[in-house]
Amino acid sequence: MKNRRVVLAAHVTGLPKESDFAIDTVDQPPPSEGEVLVRNHFVSVDPGMRGRLSGETSYAPPVPLGGVVGSATVGRVIASRNAAFAEGDWVAGAFGWQELGLTNGRGIRQIPEGPIPPSAQIGVLGIPGLTAYFGLLDIGRPQPGETVLVSTAAGAVGSATGQIAKIKGARAVGIAGGPAKCRWLTDELGFDAAIDRLAEPDIAAAVARECPNGVDVFFDNVGNSLVDPIMPLMRLHGRIVVSGQTADYNLGANERVGLKNTRAFITHRLKMQGLVVFDYVADFPTAWAELTGWIVDGRLRYREDVVEGLEALPAAFVGLFWGENFGRKLARLTH
Amino acid sequence: MKNRRVVLAAHVTGLPKESDFAIDTVDQPPPSEGEVLVRNHFVSVDPGMRGRLSGETSYAPPVPLGGVVGSATVGRVIASRNAAFAEGDWVAGAFGWQELGLTNGRGIRQIPEGPIPPSAQIGVLGIPGLTAYFGLLDIGRPQPGETVLVSTAAGAVGSATGQIAKIKGARAVGIAGGPAKCRWLTDELGFDAAIDRLAEPDIAAAVARECPNGVDVFFDNVGNSLVDPIMPLMRLHGRIVVSGQTADYNLGANERVGLKNTRAFITHRLKMQGLVVFDYVADFPTAWAELTGWIVDGRLRYREDVVEGLEALPAAFVGLFWGENFGRKLARLTH
Repeated sequence: MKNRRVVLAAHVTGLPKESDFAIDTVDQPPPSEGEVLVRNHFVSVDPGMRGRLSGETSYAPPVPLGGVVGSATVGRVIASRNAAFAEGDWVAGAFGWQELGLTNGRGIRQIPEGPIPPSAQIGVLGIPGLTAYFGLLDIGRPQPGETVLVSTAAGAVGSATGQIAKIKGARAVGIAGGPAKCRWLTDELGFDAAIDRLAEPDIAAAVARECPNGVDVFFDNVGNSLVDPIMPLMRLHGRIVVSGQTADYNLGANERVGLKNTRAFITHRLKMQGLVVFDYVADFPTAWAELTGWIVDGRLRYREDVVEGLEALPAAFVGLFWGENFGRKLARLTH
Repeated sequence: MKNRRVVLAAHVTGLPKESDFAIDTVDQPPPSEGEVLVRNHFVSVDPGMRGRLSGETSYAPPVPLGGVVGSATVGRVIASRNAAFAEGDWVAGAFGWQELGLTNGRGIRQIPEGPIPPSAQIGVLGIPGLTAYFGLLDIGRPQPGETVLVSTAAGAVGSATGQIAKIKGARAVGIAGGPAKCRWLTDELGFDAAIDRLAEPDIAAAVARECPNGVDVFFDNVGNSLVDPIMPLMRLHGRIVVSGQTADYNLGANERVGLKNTRAFITHRLKMQGLVVFDYVADFPTAWAELTGWIVDGRLRYREDVVEGLEALPAAFVGLFWGENFGRKLARLTH
């Protein structure tokens, strides 16, 4: 059996390019005793992966040259010699950008039968939805009536964050690129306001306009270039949740914008805190149950942005850093 | 009766200068019904006052031109028409840099009789000690065995912070300027190590050497120029307590060093949080009781750096920004 994979062809410097990736084909041995072989139906395309592609140490080990690019995956068991898994089971895992995945049973979990499509397990019920859930509720802790500002609000994390803020009784304001995304936030997801960053020459002025009482929680996925202008607009005891730093991943330490409006830490008693969602793994079942309930109730909606086939992955990843995605970016590898 | 005062002669730009201040004399009417007149024995010299001298809004209203420079004060009631206060009572207040203070009874508190000299009420038992107490225990939350790094460690806040860290079972490492301060930290106060910033060309290398396991809590009073190099040395889930930003107070937003090592927010799950101690006012009595117990037990020591007379105040304030103080900077106005 053959396994086609997208591997790292060159360490990424600056903005990723399609030529940083290559596709290869390797032999896939059948499962040994205790092992499970999975065919991946969907794989995710995550900006957070950028940190592992430069060869530098991040919170996760770097991907070596020739290594498979990591991602969340969802698929079906095609052969099992492990009693816990049967052929045909749907499982979520993290096999990365490849058609097949082999495991001794670790790193995959069975997807419960239910009304929610399997692809959601690596979107609104996967790392993005869990990041929104724990980042907002454990660090941001919005109170009813407070204002929650969310960047990359039409992305998988941001769109869930704003909706959870609404569920908790807060006012949700999103920043997104372009009128279509902004309309989706306000008209479909119930955000109270959306700021089109492509139409606003002065993002701080736009945020001040849409958040006239200031910002209690800023949930950011962009990085310093956006956090710095927002800092003076934070309310007393405001919380900045560092969920992602998409714009900073591609920049060396000397190229990055520095945070200069740091006087607000004292004047506004700010808290700024980062998270990696895997720290909350013991609480994932609680989050899954609550998120699933909100989806079933229609209070938490999501959008998938699906490209077809392994070949489409490098361009889809590059596009993330150009603001091209609208919802959870996935590739479908098989029907 | 006459009252001599130090007033703001010019808004401070950049580093403060003695010529930014002037001394004047005004008539002091006797107390009306309900009022209390206090003669200040000691007034404090606080770097945090810098923010109120530029005419910009900070967390406290700016001092107007011709206004008395604010400070903590400790003194004795010399005339009272308020039943709650009697002539001769020692009181702590915030009358600023002037010989006398008149109040309706608000803003002063009686100092309990006891073994601790009155000047300590505006030092280790005043805003500096309370800032150390709440900043370290509420935000830093050191655990036994963790490493607490403290900047301006020979100052009033820093010296208390390191000793409270020790009381809580943590390892305390101080950064101070010059061998005398460093020896005081390790030999008198029980810090585990002290870094002489004047002798270390690479402060990050020195911190890495003295904190070989990394820094769990960084309690900072300097600002971005020191926080940025320390950020990569923080341990997973490290906490940066923004207690003061002495080096940044004198710089415009464009002159300040920006925080660039912000990737550590995610990779190291950092929390960075500022405080203003007045937010904890309801808990001051608890803190006073605990701090007093530690002082009496000899576990919390302090040093005062006392100049004589109102005339010495402008130079003493200017000197704060040149690292000249060693312990709590006070002026004695009367014996």
